[in-house]
Amino acid sequence: MRGLFITFEGPDGSGKSTQLQRMASYLNAQLYDVLTTREPGGTAISDQIRRIVLDPEHPEMAEQTEVLLYAASRAQHVQEKIKPALEQGKMVLCDRFVDASIAYQGFGLGFGEQTVQQINDFATGGLTPDRTYMIDVAPELSRERMNTRTTQEFTQELDRIEQKELEYHARVRQGFQTLAKQHQRIMLIDGNQSIESIHQLIVQDLLNLIKARTDSHS
Amino acid sequence: MRGLFITFEGPDGSGKSTQLQRMASYLNAQLYDVLTTREPGGTAISDQIRRIVLDPEHPEMAEQTEVLLYAASRAQHVQEKIKPALEQGKMVLCDRFVDASIAYQGFGLGFGEQTVQQINDFATGGLTPDRTYMIDVAPELSRERMNTRTTQEFTQELDRIEQKELEYHARVRQGFQTLAKQHQRIMLIDGNQSIESIHQLIVQDLLNLIKARTDSHS
Repeated sequence: MRGLFITFEGPDGSGKSTQLQRMASYLNAQLYDVLTTREPGGTAISDQIRRIVLDPEHPEMAEQTEVLLYAASRAQHVQEKIKPALEQGKMVLCDRFVDASIAYQGFGLGFGEQTVQQINDFATGGLTPDRTYMIDVAPELSRERMNTRTTQEFTQELDRIEQKELEYHARVRQGFQTLAKQHQRIMLIDGNQSIESIHQLIVQDLLNLIKARTDSHS
Repeated sequence: MRGLFITFEGPDGSGKSTQLQRMASYLNAQLYDVLTTREPGGTAISDQIRRIVLDPEHPEMAEQTEVLLYAASRAQHVQEKIKPALEQGKMVLCDRFVDASIAYQGFGLGFGEQTVQQINDFATGGLTPDRTYMIDVAPELSRERMNTRTTQEFTQELDRIEQKELEYHARVRQGFQTLAKQHQRIMLIDGNQSIESIHQLIVQDLLNLIKARTDSHS
């Protein structure tokens, strides 16, 4: 049976990566075969592209270039890593996917949902997550969390994307919320809850999803 | 007055780069302000992208990735270099542009003309050359010329793209010819003529174009 494709979405500082890691540990303990990966990196080529996109030395980068580089990185990620893992029946947990591009570039940069969706459909060949856990937090809160993180790891500079202003992040949040309304696969989660509470929500939902799928295949 | 945007298209070994250089020298001698540039490079970011695309160490590159990287490089090239030069009234001579992507990726790789055109319209914001000199040669001839070049500069390995087979190059040629039929801006030139004959054809045409444009603006 083809594996499940699960994505974790939300702004930086929303706790999505923490949730992905906790979920992976949980599934591993249950002896599921799990692949964890992240956008925009994940393969040698994607990581090279990621370095170009996030390099703070590239303030001259055109926004169209940014959109196309994320899509290029994703195309490689899908072909080389995600699709083969799904075909081997693995559970794939991915930190960000097309929804992130639509929120950040379609809504945040203003290119529009449809344009970014079309470019990404080309990149992914139409691959869509089976389930998306989208953690919603106010831009002010995620910014505060990012600042705390920076103080803790003070050698790590905020990257070019993170430097962008709060207004932009408000548009991104609206993008995520719009997507959650449009697609049933997306579970929008209030990020003001504790890490443990959110983890429990996701575990419950995912177990239900696995059960429904196993039932329908037996 | 906005500058003229002139592109040179054709397969590797068609002589397009030689013609571009000769045309640039001619125009410089006539005291035109000329910018020569090339696809997919041309800016720091584009050159970094070009290195990823052409690296023979990347046989695992997905074809979708290739299409999107070329488009990303082009977006940067247009925003950072071509548009500003045209706005300054410069004559921009560019070695390959969107037509090359349509021929190589739309026809050669089989993604289709429309798909590649759409992605590139996003990349360029719809910028179209005022004139395109497209040099047509049989794949067998351009391959022979490339081989001669390799023998002469034997340390220089044929890059990943050039290694692709002749059948692919036949589809690419058909793509160029199809574009030439569709767009009046494209002048299709028989590449079996001497370098000097082709240069004279291009000079004549470009002088007519400049004259028509100056007349319409006076």
